[in-house]
Amino acid sequence: MGSIGQWSALSQKCIDIQKNSLPAQWALPVDKLATKSSGDITSLPQTNGVLSDLELQMTEQDADSILRKYLSSDWTRLIGHLNRLSDGKQLNFATEFLSNEALARADELDEYFARTGKLAGPLHGIPISIKEHLEVTGKITHAGFVSKISHVSDEDALIVKLLKDAGAVLHVRTNQPQSLMHLDCDNNITGRTLNPYNLKLTPGGSSGGEGASVGFRASVIGVGTDIGGSIRVPAAFNNCYGLRPTTLRNSNLGLYGINAGQESIRGVAGPLGQSLNDLELFQKALLDQQPWDIDTTLIPVPWRNVELHANFTVGVMMDDGMVRPHPPVLRALESTSKKLQAAGINVVPWEPFDHRHGWDIVAALYFPDGGEGYRAEFDKTGEPELRLTTWAIQYSREQPLSVRENWSLNASREAHRKAYHQLMKERGVDVILCPAYPGAGALQGTPKYWNYTAIWNILDHPAVVMPSGLRCDRSLDKFDNEYVARSGEDEREWQAYDPELFHDFPIALQVVGKHWQDEVLLKAAKKIEEAIRA
Amino acid sequence: MGSIGQWSALSQKCIDIQKNSLPAQWALPVDKLATKSSGDITSLPQTNGVLSDLELQMTEQDADSILRKYLSSDWTRLIGHLNRLSDGKQLNFATEFLSNEALARADELDEYFARTGKLAGPLHGIPISIKEHLEVTGKITHAGFVSKISHVSDEDALIVKLLKDAGAVLHVRTNQPQSLMHLDCDNNITGRTLNPYNLKLTPGGSSGGEGASVGFRASVIGVGTDIGGSIRVPAAFNNCYGLRPTTLRNSNLGLYGINAGQESIRGVAGPLGQSLNDLELFQKALLDQQPWDIDTTLIPVPWRNVELHANFTVGVMMDDGMVRPHPPVLRALESTSKKLQAAGINVVPWEPFDHRHGWDIVAALYFPDGGEGYRAEFDKTGEPELRLTTWAIQYSREQPLSVRENWSLNASREAHRKAYHQLMKERGVDVILCPAYPGAGALQGTPKYWNYTAIWNILDHPAVVMPSGLRCDRSLDKFDNEYVARSGEDEREWQAYDPELFHDFPIALQVVGKHWQDEVLLKAAKKIEEAIRA
Repeated sequence: MGSIGQWSALSQKCIDIQKNSLPAQWALPVDKLATKSSGDITSLPQTNGVLSDLELQMTEQDADSILRKYLSSDWTRLIGHLNRLSDGKQLNFATEFLSNEALARADELDEYFARTGKLAGPLHGIPISIKEHLEVTGKITHAGFVSKISHVSDEDALIVKLLKDAGAVLHVRTNQPQSLMHLDCDNNITGRTLNPYNLKLTPGGSSGGEGASVGFRASVIGVGTDIGGSIRVPAAFNNCYGLRPTTLRNSNLGLYGINAGQESIRGVAGPLGQSLNDLELFQKALLDQQPWDIDTTLIPVPWRNVELHANFTVGVMMDDGMVRPHPPVLRALESTSKKLQAAGINVVPWEPFDHRHGWDIVAALYFPDGGEGYRAEFDKTGEPELRLTTWAIQYSREQPLSVRENWSLNASREAHRKAYHQLMKERGVDVILCPAYPGAGALQGTPKYWNYTAIWNILDHPAVVMPSGLRCDRSLDKFDNEYVARSGEDEREWQAYDPELFHDFPIALQVVGKHWQDEVLLKAAKKIEEAIRA
Repeated sequence: MGSIGQWSALSQKCIDIQKNSLPAQWALPVDKLATKSSGDITSLPQTNGVLSDLELQMTEQDADSILRKYLSSDWTRLIGHLNRLSDGKQLNFATEFLSNEALARADELDEYFARTGKLAGPLHGIPISIKEHLEVTGKITHAGFVSKISHVSDEDALIVKLLKDAGAVLHVRTNQPQSLMHLDCDNNITGRTLNPYNLKLTPGGSSGGEGASVGFRASVIGVGTDIGGSIRVPAAFNNCYGLRPTTLRNSNLGLYGINAGQESIRGVAGPLGQSLNDLELFQKALLDQQPWDIDTTLIPVPWRNVELHANFTVGVMMDDGMVRPHPPVLRALESTSKKLQAAGINVVPWEPFDHRHGWDIVAALYFPDGGEGYRAEFDKTGEPELRLTTWAIQYSREQPLSVRENWSLNASREAHRKAYHQLMKERGVDVILCPAYPGAGALQGTPKYWNYTAIWNILDHPAVVMPSGLRCDRSLDKFDNEYVARSGEDEREWQAYDPELFHDFPIALQVVGKHWQDEVLLKAAKKIEEAIRA
């Protein structure tokens, strides 16, 4: 059992790394910072004069557009993104800046292009942020545990290696919550990450640093991980795009944590980005390198070219039957549904199939040891257990599961997965449009309802989060005092809606595909986005 | 806790089914039976006059040849195989004859062909036996447990359904050992299955009924399952062909047992057959039906057309470093190695990579509950625990594993799998040629060493067993009295070699491919077989 002195001294080590890793030239003068009272600081880079017009333009593109500019020799390097990083520093999404390494790599890439006239890979020069959870050679990787600050990685996570080989420039590592099991982003090491769209709200989690970085456009693409919503909730809360791929397509080698060998519910790494194309570019860049020939856990399936069939159908799930979404989320779903129909796309209602059962399975599988493993880590240094950690652990049964009880849950999970897939086929539904979270956003410390995302983890369906193009509007999205909640959790989530607080906050949508059909999902999401923008 | 009366009354139910399911017309007169003193009864059908010449010819083909005969209208139906079944009845491989259903189905298929001039599917009219472990609608499926004789299946195992849809004729269900965890074939229900090549020897197990049925040519193809060698050892001991596919390619839906949800080490269903083509035909017939769209556990990878690359290389592993193979097995490997070189194939020695470590992982994962689940089943009826069941259970640790200990083994398994794959790449080896078992065969009740097959289960490499074309020869394969054993188990296995007992018994080979590369493996095995036959 450690003392406060012990754990805070360890944390100080990481705070120093965070502080010292930003070269002096990028230290922002105090007068360029947003004030604490600023709600939405996303327009700061346009107004505080740190970025040039060209840099502003460079940082507001997706990867495809940047690659085209590189190819036409209009742009080089990534100073714009490094400046934007320093603008975003106050959001506290960075655990470590890799600015010097990034500049050196960008120079190499520029030199390569100047010499050959070719890009060095499909992600040539794209600034990519990575969740701290992924190992980087020679760096501390603590995964949000103070006890793991002693852990220095011997080699890059496989995804990190593949991204580098594809030409990406990794310029920042980002924050995550204690235990990696919050839909929020606070820990006892480098502390809380803020949401650029509203400093009072959470950026979501666990890939909250990624959400803030990509949402603030300090990185073009970010790498998160998701076992219950940890890519999608941050994408939703930061008005960007995120993909939770089907598991066993992206490598988990070098995702550091205390749960190696946990297979009954698997986390998966995936991208956040500025567009649906960014998500696809990322997946294709990884899978074209045949990672299954290195990581034998993966299935040997390349990124496939697919077409949507003529009778393409979207099922719309307004409500999962457990927790009613907030008025702005319902409005965004209704509006999208109408736009899809106007675009001639088949739309049918999607009646959820026993999401409670799915939740009961996944909740028991998150902490099959009743949280013992987590608490043992906290005890090593005396770091306090944060409230949302306690919250997550209480999802598990009080007693550790036996291996046979675990088997029984595995069998239930497989049966539910099979039945859900069969139902999508029977109903002729290709993708399901649904909320990513009950609200458009959430106050710091409050995200407690996971099952708009976790259900797709236990079913292992790929899922995309994308902006609806709409924002909360206090005049349209009134609080309904008449609503009769179905349960305590439904009441808690309903009461969390505050028309004033969320006014003007962006509203996201989730689109869910069939098991293994990540390629169809992205194609479908693009079709949906075209209809939204029409 | 049941009494002898209780369990034997239950078993009697299955003995009655076994007895009554063979229609009277196929009851073999006593004078047609082999005598107990017969060692090898495989030539009985040629000598006892039950089968006509045409029937004999029909029953000595692989599936491809039969399909060609069907197509040229030379042959119809499968009376030959039904007669051969009754010849083989004395081997006690059948738990239930499906002769009447099979004849009715064969008539339908003949009618279909007469009407359309087309075969009804890729397995049109092929007589296929199925291990009792696979569920069949309306039938008892007990998986070798007396306590499960009460279990009547609601629907066919998915593989059974897919085979029927491909035109196969299922004509017999076959025997397996208590617990499904012996490389032998005895239980407290329908008893012991015999080996047609030597009635004193075991047919192997757990798919021992399949081994005897396919080896005796009572069925063309058989369906077994394999978690530690249960397809391959019976194929090896019965002079036929067997494939353990990579897991998650063939469906386990409807493989009945007491371990649903066991995923750390997975069993897998696969074919036994008369040729390598039979194995491929079977796999292609299943995968062409896209079973992953029904069983969401499966990976969405079809059966692929592949070519061997120009530098195709076979690694030859004479010895796994734990247990030295018997002289006939070593001779067969040496002979094959020479024939491969003579055929211009690259051959290199394969130094095994820590098979002991692989064994330690897999052994702990077979019974993570310390055998509690099995013993609870036995206690329900009082059926005695057979000695090889006790043997298998002692592989596990005495205490049940915790879920976290199980995770740790999963992580070790994945690391070993990755390292082994990497080593095959580094050494430029495409397939490994090795023994399937320390001996060419084994006495009933004695097979205790699993790791010539189980190592490939824990590594999840696909593996084929095929005849070497050679037989044990007491004049060539002397017992080496000088051999100094490395361990007690090595000594036990070495002492099991008896030149007189095994004289003239066929010797099998195992060929092992890379993870997921079942198609390359079969192509390689065909190339090896060509070299052997040249």
